[in-house]
Amino acid sequence: MTSPLVVDIHTHVYPPSYMELLRSRKTVPYIHDPANGTPRLIILSSDDDPSVPLDERGRPVDSSYSDVNVKLSFMRRHGINSSVISLANPWLDFLEPEEAQVWAERINDDLEETCARVNQAADKENTLALNEKETLFAFGSLPLSAPNPDIVVNEIKRLKTLPHLRGVIMGTSGLGKGLDDPALDPVWAALQETESLMFLHPHYGLPDEAFGGADVTNRYGHVLPLALGFPLETTIAVTRMFLSGVFDRFPGLRILLAHSGGTLPFLAGRIESCIHHERKFVANGGDQPGLQKSVWDVLQTNIYLDAVVYGTAGLKAAVTAAGSPDRLMFGTDHPFFPPLDNDQDAEWVSVTTNYKAISAAFATDKEAVEGILGGNAARILSLK
Amino acid sequence: MTSPLVVDIHTHVYPPSYMELLRSRKTVPYIHDPANGTPRLIILSSDDDPSVPLDERGRPVDSSYSDVNVKLSFMRRHGINSSVISLANPWLDFLEPEEAQVWAERINDDLEETCARVNQAADKENTLALNEKETLFAFGSLPLSAPNPDIVVNEIKRLKTLPHLRGVIMGTSGLGKGLDDPALDPVWAALQETESLMFLHPHYGLPDEAFGGADVTNRYGHVLPLALGFPLETTIAVTRMFLSGVFDRFPGLRILLAHSGGTLPFLAGRIESCIHHERKFVANGGDQPGLQKSVWDVLQTNIYLDAVVYGTAGLKAAVTAAGSPDRLMFGTDHPFFPPLDNDQDAEWVSVTTNYKAISAAFATDKEAVEGILGGNAARILSLK
Repeated sequence: MTSPLVVDIHTHVYPPSYMELLRSRKTVPYIHDPANGTPRLIILSSDDDPSVPLDERGRPVDSSYSDVNVKLSFMRRHGINSSVISLANPWLDFLEPEEAQVWAERINDDLEETCARVNQAADKENTLALNEKETLFAFGSLPLSAPNPDIVVNEIKRLKTLPHLRGVIMGTSGLGKGLDDPALDPVWAALQETESLMFLHPHYGLPDEAFGGADVTNRYGHVLPLALGFPLETTIAVTRMFLSGVFDRFPGLRILLAHSGGTLPFLAGRIESCIHHERKFVANGGDQPGLQKSVWDVLQTNIYLDAVVYGTAGLKAAVTAAGSPDRLMFGTDHPFFPPLDNDQDAEWVSVTTNYKAISAAFATDKEAVEGILGGNAARILSLK
Repeated sequence: MTSPLVVDIHTHVYPPSYMELLRSRKTVPYIHDPANGTPRLIILSSDDDPSVPLDERGRPVDSSYSDVNVKLSFMRRHGINSSVISLANPWLDFLEPEEAQVWAERINDDLEETCARVNQAADKENTLALNEKETLFAFGSLPLSAPNPDIVVNEIKRLKTLPHLRGVIMGTSGLGKGLDDPALDPVWAALQETESLMFLHPHYGLPDEAFGGADVTNRYGHVLPLALGFPLETTIAVTRMFLSGVFDRFPGLRILLAHSGGTLPFLAGRIESCIHHERKFVANGGDQPGLQKSVWDVLQTNIYLDAVVYGTAGLKAAVTAAGSPDRLMFGTDHPFFPPLDNDQDAEWVSVTTNYKAISAAFATDKEAVEGILGGNAARILSLK
């Protein structure tokens, strides 16, 4: 009897070339190498606190970020068959325009090569089923700071020629003005036309003022920016896409939202109500709504959700908003949230919490559990 | 056969004296009387857009804010028996310290008098059951800008002597530094000691930068600040209370969160996970957690949620996080979100959406529905 397929669609890497890029920098995002000890990764501006010694800023960045064998060992320990790896934030958002294309191609080629090598080693003759081996697939990164969107569109098309790429990962800033920027329309068109999934992931969080100022933000470590800032950033980004009519103009666009949609499943009803009561969305001053699709329509036709929400309460909102468990996919957020004691051989609580929540939320529905754990991802991303 | 009791615990008023106060002001919050037409209420800084003519800024403020007969007519039309009225935001947050006590007492006495008059007229001999008449109760306001917290504590104690007062409503700024301010401890102690419920309600939203700047915020009318800013403000405020140990120090504190907790039920698991992985919350560098209660504990012992979430997805998260439907209470947010066509005689979609969501989410559990509609409020707030 084989175990059901488990696919992790939310799992990050920094390929070695990306590590070198971060090491060459002195402003966020950057990697600092203390004289003694593990390199430190400073990716959030709230991490770059001048009152903290440089050697202690940010978080330790070890081989779990860049060594694919550490990823494979993590997968084995947690019963994961396939991982769809993606560059971790902040991707290539910070690059100068003239560097963007070269780095995007280099990193995406790295990802393809890594997946190809691992999958070849796992199953030379390609005779095993997905749930009988460990395999990798990847979401690519886009050169969003490139001098014109054609370069982004070309990279989306090129990714379709790389056998292990399964879409793209993107942050919330788009070309720098958010995801409701009309200049992104060629990008949405290319994603729609190539049937590429876009994994929307937070990075910038919320400004410190949202939490009451930098002293409040820092008072509780990373809890406020990570627990509240990240999910809200995702929610704001996708809501801006929705309000600007992106999903009306590109009805075939498919996006995967990190952290079960940030808070979109919970707030969808309130968003819909606020639109219904907002004059700006009543076209011609009449009864005709300015948007063709409701938030619920978008959740049930354009959006997929990961199951990285750490509890049954969030999962129940997610599956209710999605209309079906078929749109949810298991994820781990590896290598983030490791055990605090750095015991790399232990099971990670951040992973087991999500496993347990899925089992608990769908206790009586084995099909739903198996779909969320891997079946949905295999279908949606055409993994084989 | 009588209908089940329906209690609206989220319904606001501006007593006439408060209207006069707002009319006397020229900065947010204020009321502006155009030469022709309905007075305009400008309460959010995003409403006070200098590029919009003064006569068109903010929203119309009609008698539904201050005339209790309009409230009673609204209640009758929507089958509501009891309303627990509360001063609408921004309460008394903006007052100079020397004015705070006088205004708080005046407004709370106004509320008591209104409730007493209405209830006396509805049932002179006090022989009818709650679901056979229309009655009012109230949450009081606190003089939080008073020069010292004793004045706040005294008002909390005085409210217990007013027969129709059932607790207090409070915004997220507390004494000006947020709800994790240790200077609030005497206030929490007084609320706990007097067994007064505190209704926590948003007002300030998020800074425009959270949405991408003022031009983005205004692009979609009130949708972003109201649909996303408000719920996040509540979530941030209660999370700061939790992280600072308020619920460990005051285990008997009972708070009601607006809009089904903002987003707390959805994000509770992520908050708990972030704490678990945050060194600041590992006391003495060991395994001892710095907080005694988990977010789930607090949701199930200290927190009540209204059912103002406009959809089954949010309601399912709310009831799962609360551990039971017994902690949810129906609300309307009246007089906000009226029909856009200003038809005051029509049923309000903002109300029927919540009615329908409650029925749909608990279709097979009549007891849960009746509890949420009114039974829970009658029990929790000792309405009779």
